[in-house]
Amino acid sequence: MNVDSFEEYQSFLRNNPIKENCPVDYVLDLFQSKWNVRVLYELTKADTIRFGALKRLIPRITNAVLSLTLKNLEQKGLVHRRQFDEVPLRVEYSLSEKGKSMYPIFVSMYNWGMAYREKD
Amino acid sequence: MNVDSFEEYQSFLRNNPIKENCPVDYVLDLFQSKWNVRVLYELTKADTIRFGALKRLIPRITNAVLSLTLKNLEQKGLVHRRQFDEVPLRVEYSLSEKGKSMYPIFVSMYNWGMAYREKD
Repeated sequence: MNVDSFEEYQSFLRNNPIKENCPVDYVLDLFQSKWNVRVLYELTKADTIRFGALKRLIPRITNAVLSLTLKNLEQKGLVHRRQFDEVPLRVEYSLSEKGKSMYPIFVSMYNWGMAYREKD
Repeated sequence: MNVDSFEEYQSFLRNNPIKENCPVDYVLDLFQSKWNVRVLYELTKADTIRFGALKRLIPRITNAVLSLTLKNLEQKGLVHRRQFDEVPLRVEYSLSEKGKSMYPIFVSMYNWGMAYREKD
């Protein structure tokens, strides 16, 4: 969808009724867990990061939830997990190309939020 | 934030640490209820719509939840409620300018979702 105004957006929606497998819904599902978003945010800043370092950046998350969040993001193809056969075991996480390609979504959320969040 | 690449986005995040009152979080809160998004979607298509007609477009929502969702969106300044002093009472809902200005968020979600949702 390539639109430059609300009217074009509205016209697009009117001409393209939602069917099953809505692409916006796919993103909304990801956003139902704020941990997903927080982990994507930290991975964006870090490039590559180990589990323990990531955990320290997100103090309130538990090991179990961080582990589950990373597994979920990996399954969705957003995060790469690279394991080095060392002792102790070293595992590093980074964003995949798919994960990196989400940035326009966060930019548009950031810009809208900046414009409006304090006007409530 | 005006960025054209992941690298610019990454650099912005690194140089602008999240403080309280994160603008992205403000949007994520809105998205925690998918009814919010569904109602915004229907209001976008409809321009102006009455409660009953809106209800018919969203078959699985109850009157109570639709009423609460509209009240919530009205409080956040996203939806206008206009009441006509007629018998029976007529109430019409429409997007506010703030509500309309969200469209770039949905466009970016749509485009990313279209590119990736089927690759899982």
